Amino acid sequence: MGSKVGEFRKKLKIVDVKGGPNEGLDRVGLMIVVAGWVRTLRAQSSVTFIEVNDGSCLSNMQCVMTSDAEGYDQVKSGLITTGASIWIQGNVVPSQGSKQKVELKVNKIVLVGKSDPSYPIQKKRVSREFLRTKAHLRPRTNTFGAVARVRNALAYATHKFFQENGFIWISSPIITASDCEGAGEQFCVTTLIPSSREAAESPVDAIPKTKDGLIDWSQDFFEKPAFLTVSGQLNAETYATALSNVYTFGPTFRAENSNTSRHLAEFWMIEPELAFADLKDDMACATAYLQYVVRYILDNCKEDMDFFNTWIEKGIIDRLSTVAERDFVQLSYTDAIELLIKAKKKFEFLVKWGCDLQSEHERYLTEEAFGGCPVIVSDYPKEIKAFYMRQNDDGRTVAAMDMLVPRIGELIGGSQREERLEYLEGRLDELKLNRDSYWWYLDLRHYGSGLVFILIKVTNFLNC
Amino acid sequence: MGSKVGEFRKKLKIVDVKGGPNEGLDRVGLMIVVAGWVRTLRAQSSVTFIEVNDGSCLSNMQCVMTSDAEGYDQVKSGLITTGASIWIQGNVVPSQGSKQKVELKVNKIVLVGKSDPSYPIQKKRVSREFLRTKAHLRPRTNTFGAVARVRNALAYATHKFFQENGFIWISSPIITASDCEGAGEQFCVTTLIPSSREAAESPVDAIPKTKDGLIDWSQDFFEKPAFLTVSGQLNAETYATALSNVYTFGPTFRAENSNTSRHLAEFWMIEPELAFADLKDDMACATAYLQYVVRYILDNCKEDMDFFNTWIEKGIIDRLSTVAERDFVQLSYTDAIELLIKAKKKFEFLVKWGCDLQSEHERYLTEEAFGGCPVIVSDYPKEIKAFYMRQNDDGRTVAAMDMLVPRIGELIGGSQREERLEYLEGRLDELKLNRDSYWWYLDLRHYGSGLVFILIKVTNFLNC
Repeated sequence: MGSKVGEFRKKLKIVDVKGGPNEGLDRVGLMIVVAGWVRTLRAQSSVTFIEVNDGSCLSNMQCVMTSDAEGYDQVKSGLITTGASIWIQGNVVPSQGSKQKVELKVNKIVLVGKSDPSYPIQKKRVSREFLRTKAHLRPRTNTFGAVARVRNALAYATHKFFQENGFIWISSPIITASDCEGAGEQFCVTTLIPSSREAAESPVDAIPKTKDGLIDWSQDFFEKPAFLTVSGQLNAETYATALSNVYTFGPTFRAENSNTSRHLAEFWMIEPELAFADLKDDMACATAYLQYVVRYILDNCKEDMDFFNTWIEKGIIDRLSTVAERDFVQLSYTDAIELLIKAKKKFEFLVKWGCDLQSEHERYLTEEAFGGCPVIVSDYPKEIKAFYMRQNDDGRTVAAMDMLVPRIGELIGGSQREERLEYLEGRLDELKLNRDSYWWYLDLRHYGSGLVFILIKVTNFLNC
Repeated sequence: MGSKVGEFRKKLKIVDVKGGPNEGLDRVGLMIVVAGWVRTLRAQSSVTFIEVNDGSCLSNMQCVMTSDAEGYDQVKSGLITTGASIWIQGNVVPSQGSKQKVELKVNKIVLVGKSDPSYPIQKKRVSREFLRTKAHLRPRTNTFGAVARVRNALAYATHKFFQENGFIWISSPIITASDCEGAGEQFCVTTLIPSSREAAESPVDAIPKTKDGLIDWSQDFFEKPAFLTVSGQLNAETYATALSNVYTFGPTFRAENSNTSRHLAEFWMIEPELAFADLKDDMACATAYLQYVVRYILDNCKEDMDFFNTWIEKGIIDRLSTVAERDFVQLSYTDAIELLIKAKKKFEFLVKWGCDLQSEHERYLTEEAFGGCPVIVSDYPKEIKAFYMRQNDDGRTVAAMDMLVPRIGELIGGSQREERLEYLEGRLDELKLNRDSYWWYLDLRHYGSGLVFILIKVTNFLNC
């Protein structure tokens, strides 16, 4: 890294002190500086305890201070309160308390930024609805801090997995003039409406129009209608037919007004594309990916996962361990439907061959039918899947798969692509999609692309 | 990784064979399978040479085939042509030619997808303007393949650098109801205009309006005007005041009609935020980051960088080596202006204290005044910088810095944030920005945030 990096790391992070295998005991005797935010402050007659957190880990550093410490007057006069940011220099000593192995005996304290007594994030538990009104401060809570760290670990593990397996990250364009799949409502992107401060008061008449009264797109930024793409996958295929294995990892936008906790207008999605691969490779890759990232957070975010297990969702660690270790169940859509029909459970939505699986069906399969083991369902009816998925020989199903996991349902979807031009064009026609809009996609089949592709679309994963 | 990963890696990538220190000689004698696209095919009387590329590296695999190979009839009958995708099984043998150390003696060839004779990417050099019309096929050229691989390496090195230094990746929201900096034109995001296929023919009158003729935002997706953010940095600060060091790395959108090669409507940007840091830490971090990623591509993308050095820009490796190794020059804006005024060079734009540095000035400093060494200019006049930058004691400059590099000019910009509420409010007022719009940002100064921040904004880097 070079010595320069050291300059902005003069301080130690709390995780650097307490994050080791013996929770900081190897640091005893060291004089260190930490900087962070006061979580609690308890003044006793001869000694003051300050819990400081710097977000590097869930744990606070307990700082113990007597009246001989430099800066003690600021504590005594009540200047340092919950929420304040402070610098503390002290010696790492074994802790008297049972809640931690080490604590900091303070030599010097500096108030960096004081906190108004109205600081709303106190030690007691508060509702997430309340925290939504304090969105700019909620990253300082245990829950939001832990979510941020685990989300970071998942994102990094995602890059590590694909990079270590020879995939090349590409960023497919987000603003697009065409749509993908013919599915998914898109947001329009325009400068015909003036910038934010004037927009609210903007008359409809101010939007440029042609003599026929149509929106005059020639005056828009791109001189034609432009949208936020709902998927970069078709675009990613142009790279997969050149670089073999690629992946996208970026934000995606859907203008769908489905008020579920699993569908967002803006979310980050991972879209790998493998060349010279089939549906079996697709399932193997999706399984390896999921097991890799789950194992990664179990190994690297232990403290945060323990926190979730205790306070947010009991059993989460066991459930994830199952995902990381078990062989996934694999069955066809047709078998899954049969299993659901025979189930002794009452479903809200009727089950019959041809229907899309609802969350209740997906969860029944993974949670009840197969006891918490992830299940991969494959070979769906072509009518409920996208045009680019490869038709199976039975004439009614396509080489698509969905990976279902307990408590969530579908987590990953993928398919083998239709490499046969005549089948692809046939599906476009059946779905009344315009061949001309897809000329470049069809063109890939003209030039050495009778190869088999897969897509794994990991949606919403990082938002779960 | 577990054994499952192996299943989708049955084939070897060409880089796995030829990418080692002895360019594949350690693989001699192995029977392998590669899959890729035909770059050239030369049939001689008794032997046929096929160059295959799979995008894993710049190098092709030379495949040598005689009439006893399985599948030879497809070659003989002309079915396998440039652009076709093929699977080849063969033995790695020392190459007879001087262009590579090893080649593949073919046992079996399978045509996966044939290529139409109209395939437009032939071996001869073609212009980038021509390739723009074949955007779906250009990733198969040497130049675009090399750019994709180097860009991937830069992105991964970016994550590695920040992760190894304890930064947490966050994704700040892209769709926003407020604007940042009061600078940068924004795109409006709306569903008031119907989806792509109907948009082109959509009448202005179809846009919902209030009884006063204003756009009726209550009928839009978010029930108010929404935009693509021009920066996530203010948002990232809410995480920096909780987690200490964070970074964003995602797409950014600017509706600025500046037709330069350095300003794009859509680009990926890195925005790190450091807590408890000052401008000096900012410069150290920016320097360490840049040197890390440059060193990373010099070490890991040698073949592609050699290609650029030979065919795209002679001297690029030397120039980047200078960036990776030299101590950067550091001088104040005031000194830079003095130096420019004294320069014997005629500039198109007049230089005087208070002016923004133009590209020609930036390049003079780094290329001529300091002989190709990167230069960090700091402490700019507050009038030409954003409201959130910390005012220096001189009352006229702010703690901002720009890093200038040869041939590009400004590559990274950063600043120490104004932590004093009264100064921050004063600047908002001077710039006629609405305090109410920034209530949550100002609020961060109320609650333990009198700490010093920095921002490094690495714009356009990955697009260079």
